[in-house]
Amino acid sequence: MLLFAKVGSNLLTGSLIERMAHKLALIGFGTVSQGLAKLLMEQTESIKQQGAEFQVVAIATNSRGSVFDPDGLDLKAALKAVQSGSLDNYPGGEKGWDSLKIINESNADIIIENTLTNLDDGEPALSHFKAALQQGKHVITANKGPVVLAYSELMNLAKANNVNLLIEGTVMSGTPVLNLSHFGLGGCNIHEVQGILNGTTNYILTQMETGMSYDDALKQAQELGFAEADPTADVEGWDALAKVVILASVIMGVDLKVSDVDREGITNISIDDVEKAKADGKRWKLIGQVKKENGVVKASVKPMLIPLSDPLAAVGAAMNAITFYTDVLKSVTITGAGAGGPQTGFAVLSDLLELHRSES
Amino acid sequence: MLLFAKVGSNLLTGSLIERMAHKLALIGFGTVSQGLAKLLMEQTESIKQQGAEFQVVAIATNSRGSVFDPDGLDLKAALKAVQSGSLDNYPGGEKGWDSLKIINESNADIIIENTLTNLDDGEPALSHFKAALQQGKHVITANKGPVVLAYSELMNLAKANNVNLLIEGTVMSGTPVLNLSHFGLGGCNIHEVQGILNGTTNYILTQMETGMSYDDALKQAQELGFAEADPTADVEGWDALAKVVILASVIMGVDLKVSDVDREGITNISIDDVEKAKADGKRWKLIGQVKKENGVVKASVKPMLIPLSDPLAAVGAAMNAITFYTDVLKSVTITGAGAGGPQTGFAVLSDLLELHRSES
Repeated sequence: MLLFAKVGSNLLTGSLIERMAHKLALIGFGTVSQGLAKLLMEQTESIKQQGAEFQVVAIATNSRGSVFDPDGLDLKAALKAVQSGSLDNYPGGEKGWDSLKIINESNADIIIENTLTNLDDGEPALSHFKAALQQGKHVITANKGPVVLAYSELMNLAKANNVNLLIEGTVMSGTPVLNLSHFGLGGCNIHEVQGILNGTTNYILTQMETGMSYDDALKQAQELGFAEADPTADVEGWDALAKVVILASVIMGVDLKVSDVDREGITNISIDDVEKAKADGKRWKLIGQVKKENGVVKASVKPMLIPLSDPLAAVGAAMNAITFYTDVLKSVTITGAGAGGPQTGFAVLSDLLELHRSES
Repeated sequence: MLLFAKVGSNLLTGSLIERMAHKLALIGFGTVSQGLAKLLMEQTESIKQQGAEFQVVAIATNSRGSVFDPDGLDLKAALKAVQSGSLDNYPGGEKGWDSLKIINESNADIIIENTLTNLDDGEPALSHFKAALQQGKHVITANKGPVVLAYSELMNLAKANNVNLLIEGTVMSGTPVLNLSHFGLGGCNIHEVQGILNGTTNYILTQMETGMSYDDALKQAQELGFAEADPTADVEGWDALAKVVILASVIMGVDLKVSDVDREGITNISIDDVEKAKADGKRWKLIGQVKKENGVVKASVKPMLIPLSDPLAAVGAAMNAITFYTDVLKSVTITGAGAGGPQTGFAVLSDLLELHRSES
């Protein structure tokens, strides 16, 4: 079909060149989208190498204003403005458009949705996703909320409007796990996925192996910014659970509810448990698991004893990892960063490049 | 450009549907291409899911005959025939075409070249590659010879003829390392690659950690079929070196000669060395390394002491692994099979699906 694309490009070079510069709107401008903005300025070489061009035409925040310029924003000035307190300080552009107006009325063809994750009802992101897809605009996100709550509904909406919903950043930030499962492993069947999906709990467990108590390890994680003041979402396994639901949707094609996943955190693991495991040549890890047996998909998040011979046992500190169990290749494990603004911003950039490839 | 593809497909549905069934010629029909043939029969579901269709129209071997049928061969019958001693026993089809005649005159649009690896002059594969690319036919291979000796020349030839040369199977068999480096990590810069690229040596080193002598471990590897009767290519690091040269070409874009790579095998590692490393919380691994420093690329294959905290330390037995060191994501490690007929056949299938995607 490349052939016809070429014919088309000869006939309509002008409009194609315009088409090449993808126009982005950033809905939410926190660490992830700021990380993306910096990458769009820094990674110009690797972006150009892939024949892509991206232009941010609008940025909307919840409490720090918004700005829209159909001809493209100066990202350096936009970062400076938001860091100074409000996008109202951006020189030029239209101000005061809210997220939905930008999604519906701006000339952006790709909506980057990175507002705060809400696992209860997914809002406001869920409404942003639906508006964008209904407008025939691609959506790229690292926001787990809408994906956990409405993946297949949103994918169907995307298909119906002939656009894409790309979510690499929702699991293991920029480490390309979904890309790998879809493309690199696309030719085989994945019947089980096991992963260390939360960096905070892995950091705590790793520190406990040095003899540190759970409380001290948690305190240290909080001081280092790995853990929230209220660590419940991490240490009780809720964050890993959200990722397990996403893996079940993307890889196994089943919609799980949060309540379908057996969940146990790490708060009941003692120094003695860790010491005993070490003596047995094993390690406690908080493992998210999705397993297909006779067509039935079971999912869980719980502490498991991992033998040192398992690649997951070697994943220390705040690193994450996923092992795919397949029919042809047996096991394939990918280990990398699981969080971070630049890393998650990179996931969005990867999806942008994937989108560009799929249209080239 | 998807747009024009759709217009095209409406105008020319018929020829498009025909185009969808990619016609393959298998040059060389050993374990890899037999593994591919089995996968083409077994993985029909995942192939169909990606909207692809593959039809083998010709198979050529060096000493077991050849067969050609422009309307497609029965793979089950072809496997039976070759296992019975010769493709001459295949019911029907034209017999007696040699490899070059099949490449030049058959209706195959994709040439799967998996003859024996020859690192001296790359023949006969190198001539097969050149003929196919000059004919405007895609080439997919797991054959390291021509890739090590003439990667950029072959890539230029492919570009000049508007076709692709795909080589996923040349490094870590079906574990999608090249796919990952190109797509999943396409948005960042890889400045160093470190890997365990040879399963035989890793198996021997792993066994030595249980107290087994080098000689006994080698003998066991030979009994298990991991090691050749003459193990030189593995234990002296030549196999890993070939993969290092390929990684330097594909990831760093530089052509290294075999003589540019510092090479040391594992034959000088004693039980005492292994014990001492263990006592220091480290492991000896045969590491292939490609490193870019101030624009200069250095490559080596040598035994290195790896701390247990490094993901490569956990890679045991015949498994392989590669760590990519990048600017944005820091380190990303992929661990998986490094050899095997079905696994390497899978690499060819992955490249076939990638080729299909790039044309869809």
